Amino acid sequence: MVRDPDGQPCESSGADERNEMTDIAKKPRIVILGGGFAGVYTALALEKAQKGREDFEVVLVNKENYFVFQPMLPEVISGTIGLTDVVSPLRRLLKKTDIHIREVESVDLEKREVTTSPGFKPHSHVIAYDHLVLAMGTVTDFRGLPGLPEHAMPFKNLGDALELRNHVIRALEEASIEHHDPELRRQLLTFVVAGGGFSGVEVAAELNDFVRGVARSYPRLHPAEIRVILLHALDRILPEVDESLALFAQKILRKRGVEIRLGTRLQSATGNAAILAGGESIPTRTLVSTVPSSPHPLIEALALPKAKNGRLLSDGHLQVQGVTTVWAVGDCAKIATADGTGVPPTAQHATRQAVVAAHNILAAIRGGEKRVFDFKGLGKMGSLGHRSAVAEIFGVKISGFIAWWMWRTIYLMKMPGWGRRLKVASAWTLDLILPPDLVELRFGRSQGMSQEHYEPGQDVFRQGDLGDRLYIILSGTAEVRRANGNGETILARLGPGQTFGEMALVNMATRNASVRCTAPMDVLSLPKKDFAVLAANIPDLRKSFERLASERAEQQHLSSGAASA
Amino acid sequence: MVRDPDGQPCESSGADERNEMTDIAKKPRIVILGGGFAGVYTALALEKAQKGREDFEVVLVNKENYFVFQPMLPEVISGTIGLTDVVSPLRRLLKKTDIHIREVESVDLEKREVTTSPGFKPHSHVIAYDHLVLAMGTVTDFRGLPGLPEHAMPFKNLGDALELRNHVIRALEEASIEHHDPELRRQLLTFVVAGGGFSGVEVAAELNDFVRGVARSYPRLHPAEIRVILLHALDRILPEVDESLALFAQKILRKRGVEIRLGTRLQSATGNAAILAGGESIPTRTLVSTVPSSPHPLIEALALPKAKNGRLLSDGHLQVQGVTTVWAVGDCAKIATADGTGVPPTAQHATRQAVVAAHNILAAIRGGEKRVFDFKGLGKMGSLGHRSAVAEIFGVKISGFIAWWMWRTIYLMKMPGWGRRLKVASAWTLDLILPPDLVELRFGRSQGMSQEHYEPGQDVFRQGDLGDRLYIILSGTAEVRRANGNGETILARLGPGQTFGEMALVNMATRNASVRCTAPMDVLSLPKKDFAVLAANIPDLRKSFERLASERAEQQHLSSGAASA
Repeated sequence: MVRDPDGQPCESSGADERNEMTDIAKKPRIVILGGGFAGVYTALALEKAQKGREDFEVVLVNKENYFVFQPMLPEVISGTIGLTDVVSPLRRLLKKTDIHIREVESVDLEKREVTTSPGFKPHSHVIAYDHLVLAMGTVTDFRGLPGLPEHAMPFKNLGDALELRNHVIRALEEASIEHHDPELRRQLLTFVVAGGGFSGVEVAAELNDFVRGVARSYPRLHPAEIRVILLHALDRILPEVDESLALFAQKILRKRGVEIRLGTRLQSATGNAAILAGGESIPTRTLVSTVPSSPHPLIEALALPKAKNGRLLSDGHLQVQGVTTVWAVGDCAKIATADGTGVPPTAQHATRQAVVAAHNILAAIRGGEKRVFDFKGLGKMGSLGHRSAVAEIFGVKISGFIAWWMWRTIYLMKMPGWGRRLKVASAWTLDLILPPDLVELRFGRSQGMSQEHYEPGQDVFRQGDLGDRLYIILSGTAEVRRANGNGETILARLGPGQTFGEMALVNMATRNASVRCTAPMDVLSLPKKDFAVLAANIPDLRKSFERLASERAEQQHLSSGAASA
Repeated sequence: MVRDPDGQPCESSGADERNEMTDIAKKPRIVILGGGFAGVYTALALEKAQKGREDFEVVLVNKENYFVFQPMLPEVISGTIGLTDVVSPLRRLLKKTDIHIREVESVDLEKREVTTSPGFKPHSHVIAYDHLVLAMGTVTDFRGLPGLPEHAMPFKNLGDALELRNHVIRALEEASIEHHDPELRRQLLTFVVAGGGFSGVEVAAELNDFVRGVARSYPRLHPAEIRVILLHALDRILPEVDESLALFAQKILRKRGVEIRLGTRLQSATGNAAILAGGESIPTRTLVSTVPSSPHPLIEALALPKAKNGRLLSDGHLQVQGVTTVWAVGDCAKIATADGTGVPPTAQHATRQAVVAAHNILAAIRGGEKRVFDFKGLGKMGSLGHRSAVAEIFGVKISGFIAWWMWRTIYLMKMPGWGRRLKVASAWTLDLILPPDLVELRFGRSQGMSQEHYEPGQDVFRQGDLGDRLYIILSGTAEVRRANGNGETILARLGPGQTFGEMALVNMATRNASVRCTAPMDVLSLPKKDFAVLAANIPDLRKSFERLASERAEQQHLSSGAASA
């Protein structure tokens, strides 16, 4: 840290008037980015050290106002525990930390400032720091996997878990209505989870238990129609634990109806299929991917030393290599260990790093010895649902009911706050006697403009469908086909920059032709309602589409000899 | 009902192949639209009568897959009970009814068909009926109140309650960040509820308890800054009950910090104010309106006899006057009573109507005497939160703790399903010892295109703000102002059809001028991101805005003599 001769930070930063920190004796400020295990436990350790001295202040910036207790997140799918019991409000955990709920927009390492994105008003907010702790974890990163950003669901935070839960219930409701359409029904009743690590296995197990449990309330659905598929690239699941435990888990999951596909990689996705390396296509409307993840985009943008996989290089003191004011902990860091082995991205490691980082930051501020991070891990546990789990603790392998009982007990004790523990314990008790909940919490589902990915042979829409969206091709190609008596005529071939679907919007009718993808295609899709409002208010846009529609109508009239609108 | 000589419905409808009802002996089908008290209790009564005979089938169509226990909905705001405990999955309540979760698109009274909106695929679904039960309740209807559709929050269903809860937490978080902006802070910490009937009073009471309870976790917020305001048009709240109870309720609420404004009507709203008849403006970012409501738009579209207020005219048998195959129950009906008095829109009345309607529909199908609806009501109860309530039962007035205890006990017993009861009872128990939860459940908050209402003098944005949206004026006027040294120059006056805010989008900069509303104005607002995607893909749109931006730049250059971008 750059200091002036009396040990105070050189620059207390010009941002103070913006931050109302008007104390005359300016205290060093530690800003933590991220409210996961690493960030929260760093703040907790700092709060502890603050007691009686108050010689520094702590700000924690996070997008959500709660901490997610990740190990229990999959339980949200089935609603075993209350929807918000798996998270803890940050303000309740950290009473002396200044909690700042915003997205981080940028970090200026030179000026030592963090800028957060606008809230209700279009103004950014600037927070000056003396020490910065980067604890932003990883984000799901679907880049390079066509169709996944548009059609696969990540499973990282509470929003993801709720969305998956709601989507699954919606799929069951729709399968129950669309019983006359076997193709759609098969898509709706197939649930695919990609990634056979702990996270993917727990999601698949919970999803399977939940779907099969609630399906009993849908008289039109037969249990045999439901498929839950777990895709994994290696030759056994759970690479984190010993083979015997993985084989136990595979046996248990298969017995409960999960199809495990080993040596299989997900390659791309469309709105109604998961496509595997090799070309096999699994019809599905529910694709969850727990892989791959990469560091937060913000970290990508920082000029700091990084490992090949984009993680920040932390030294043994958890300081970013060579930067005295920036520290990196948790999953966004690659930590140099004494024996050169990696540190797994788990809560037990993150919380231990947090304590070391807090100690070392204080050593930098107050003076004193720094400590080196050195923790070997206590073990690993993964729930398989239905009173079964696998665990490897101090090298001892445990599986089945005892492992599940340990899983519940240990994690319940690890939950921060006795209020949550009480709620979770009470929910678990009620869960023993009550059937799984199947309430679909739909809100704010106003599907606006979106992107969609199509693969060759897939229809964007079919002749006779309701004309509810307009499409613009971003890349790839399609053809417009119309059924004529027995055969089909190709009316047009479309490519990048071209628009389709506009006729039904202008004429308020059903589709008079089908559009089928001919080369992998990305489209921008605009709902009828949004388009109508825009067209009504932007004359150039309206004219442009009216011209296009009349051209198309004329062209179709010529080519098909028919006068249908 | 039109019947053929042997008493079977004449036309079993051509929709059967679409609905897979391939029974050879076609049973009469009763279709219920709406899953509130009226609809669900009609289905329950029909299910009971079905036992052992199975001589008809029942379909219930509802937008959500759950039944909302309205009396407890306000408790969702504070999270006293679990977020989904206030609702019950329809499938769990109605095991023999065919549950169809879709929006109703139209009803064809001639063909006796109900069409529901598309699900995952752009296809409507048609359900034929022999008897139709309209039980769609009312919808919040803000028409004629400028700015309310855009800026006021309704309080009708679970989604509304969750949204209000999340919005309130968000407002507290933002007030805590924006402590340097007293104007914004005042807006964020003022919560306005319009409507002093039971619903409004319960919302205001819960909101007040919740906000004041959780504000303790925000060290930067002072309790004195928080205002909860209840607006009511008459000279006392709770017109449903005796004056003494209303006065009791007013005293209790005022003691807890609710400002009650009597004889006050809400006239319009903007994004940061509630505007009263008379012109007074209350700065707020949270406006809940529990009035007014009108029948569902679908009912509006039906050619059936209706009262002046749009409600369906039901005869004493609960049949829509003169239409033998259509029945109307609950809040969407105006029921002819023997003594001519109205039927209040409460659960106790709806559930009694349901039983009578079910009986009479069966009488129409099986033959038998019809019954006349005649129910006087048992009483009224309203919770004031914090262990206080008011009640009027069999004419006896009760208030305070005993009323509250009765409220909880009676409603707990009225909840459908012992599972929910157990969950609610357990949540109430934990609530005695735990502080209120303050988790903000944000998901799918992707604010797309939206409409906004402005009043004269209000700024849409200010010079120096981030350029994050583009605006199109639908009605009203505004002026573009730029600060120059000490004064301000008016650069342009804008009216309907004109666009503003596009420069910051095209140039990716901050606003170089302010836009202030000069006559009540409605605008369409498009986020930067959406606009950028559209402009990149629709060449005409891009050209149109590039032309506009260069015209504006030139014009501003000429008028201000400055060359700022």
